[in-house]
Amino acid sequence: MAAQNPEEVLARFEELSVLESEFDDVELEIIRKSNALNAPLYKKRAAVVAKIPHFWALVFEQSPPEVDNFIQPSDSKVFAECLETFEVSRFEIDDPKGSPRSFSIKFGFGDNEYFEDRVLEKKFWFRKALDGDGWQGLVSEPVKISWKKGKDMTSGLTDAAYDLYQAKKNLADAANGDAKAKESSLPEYRALAKKIELSEEASISFFAWFGFVSSWRWISAEESEQASKAEAERLEKRKRGEKVEEEPTEDSNEDFQETEVFPQGDELATIIAEDMWPSAIKYFKHAHEADDEELSDLEVEDYDEDDSDGEIDIRGLVGKGRNSKDSSESPPPKKQRKT
Amino acid sequence: MAAQNPEEVLARFEELSVLESEFDDVELEIIRKSNALNAPLYKKRAAVVAKIPHFWALVFEQSPPEVDNFIQPSDSKVFAECLETFEVSRFEIDDPKGSPRSFSIKFGFGDNEYFEDRVLEKKFWFRKALDGDGWQGLVSEPVKISWKKGKDMTSGLTDAAYDLYQAKKNLADAANGDAKAKESSLPEYRALAKKIELSEEASISFFAWFGFVSSWRWISAEESEQASKAEAERLEKRKRGEKVEEEPTEDSNEDFQETEVFPQGDELATIIAEDMWPSAIKYFKHAHEADDEELSDLEVEDYDEDDSDGEIDIRGLVGKGRNSKDSSESPPPKKQRKT
Repeated sequence: MAAQNPEEVLARFEELSVLESEFDDVELEIIRKSNALNAPLYKKRAAVVAKIPHFWALVFEQSPPEVDNFIQPSDSKVFAECLETFEVSRFEIDDPKGSPRSFSIKFGFGDNEYFEDRVLEKKFWFRKALDGDGWQGLVSEPVKISWKKGKDMTSGLTDAAYDLYQAKKNLADAANGDAKAKESSLPEYRALAKKIELSEEASISFFAWFGFVSSWRWISAEESEQASKAEAERLEKRKRGEKVEEEPTEDSNEDFQETEVFPQGDELATIIAEDMWPSAIKYFKHAHEADDEELSDLEVEDYDEDDSDGEIDIRGLVGKGRNSKDSSESPPPKKQRKT
Repeated sequence: MAAQNPEEVLARFEELSVLESEFDDVELEIIRKSNALNAPLYKKRAAVVAKIPHFWALVFEQSPPEVDNFIQPSDSKVFAECLETFEVSRFEIDDPKGSPRSFSIKFGFGDNEYFEDRVLEKKFWFRKALDGDGWQGLVSEPVKISWKKGKDMTSGLTDAAYDLYQAKKNLADAANGDAKAKESSLPEYRALAKKIELSEEASISFFAWFGFVSSWRWISAEESEQASKAEAERLEKRKRGEKVEEEPTEDSNEDFQETEVFPQGDELATIIAEDMWPSAIKYFKHAHEADDEELSDLEVEDYDEDDSDGEIDIRGLVGKGRNSKDSSESPPPKKQRKT
């Protein structure tokens, strides 16, 4: 551990940066490989679980705490009543301009009392920023949910997030580039910021997650492409041993998080895509283990709607209620905990 | 979502169990592929970081909270003073009787005042239990640390864990099979249980982790092999559509956790192996970002030992101290936060 001069240390850092990009390439290859190998299994799984009532509602019910903590009893009720299909896909995996890290999370619903939509799909794009210390991560667009009258579980958050996003787009189209400064003076900006201020984060509906944009700020496909190019150029220079000038970091005074309806939306999406989705069978089996232990059963049909005040223990709905009896619907077989 | 008869539901469960084992096979293939692709990069990385003083101490310092929470200021001090090499390897990856999920975590230390060992290696074997609802996971053996006189940071926990492990082995060799019932009457059992009872978990040294055995109970290679065989037989039956009898679950009244010195040792090891190890460069760079922001530097040499009372902010040691100045040793280059 001899003392080193600054030039030597700088050289080591350049070597580490080159290595980091090599690790990154391997990771992308592994994602592609994993996607290819798992695709036929996901297809088979979808066919099997289509025949199991409430499969995905039960998976959500038994999901890891990082997901479960965001699901309110009223959200569980919606899942139990009408969530029919669920799918995660890597929609940019073959797109040379996209990223294998981008993914979409798609919910298929039956006819229900809450919203008109039969499909709610939320896409997450893996993008890189030009400024901000080379930030990279997942960004998304607010998904419009067509809530039925008086049924909006987010008290207007998804609508307001969607409206602001549209207003920003229009502003950008009109002003072209010079738009950023004006965003915070949009009436839609103030409306959303106010709504977020008033909402209680602890009891916010999972459905507000459909309004998520970014844990930092929105990054367009164009900006991300430019950032990737600049990164590739720096990498080439590093490999040739040339000195690399870093892009200056623009300090932004704007508080992008003031209008983010679901601040940890990207983390939640990642856990859903990388843990809940691949391990769904495991979580489903957990539901039936809990079932066995507490002698309960699926009893959505028996559920008395009048009890619904948002405070009920929805677990009774999908398999963990203490006072439930056997029902003729989908009795979980005993002794199926092992593989 | 039509009502189903129990036989149909049972058939779906059998299908899911077959699918689960197919997902498992894919996961193992991915681990092997990832290991092969990353191996040359880990080798390159080791060569680069060997030239960077305190690289691994800084990585531990900036590790995710799931690791960092277990590292006491006094542990950081040891890492900063004498941790020279660090390596994770999947030592059973080519062993048909082993598992690609098994791994070893190896620390290389310079001459130091705390222990005689220059290498401390902790191995984790991925094993399956015959009983206990098909439990599978990582088990380990206590590693003997040759503490110098008066320097045992675990107040005897690693020694007691090692002694009990040896005593159990001798007991098993002598009694052959009938040993389990007697384990809890071993003097080494009572000695360790007492030590654990007296230790304060909140301030337990990271080095106690070397004494970890299992989050459930010890499982031998033989038992795991037998369990894997039984599992494979059940799978074959399922594929042929035959009825599968599950193994009866033996309820054990013994509290294995009474003598576990580091109850979450397997989780900690997993995060070290699957996050900290592959992302070490990222965490190392974080250390230097913190550095930049607080105008501090590596200054282990400047550290005044007399201040050490176990309550100091060890971050000053390895790069985050607020009152530090530039030192000639390893000044972190500025503006290196981007890749």
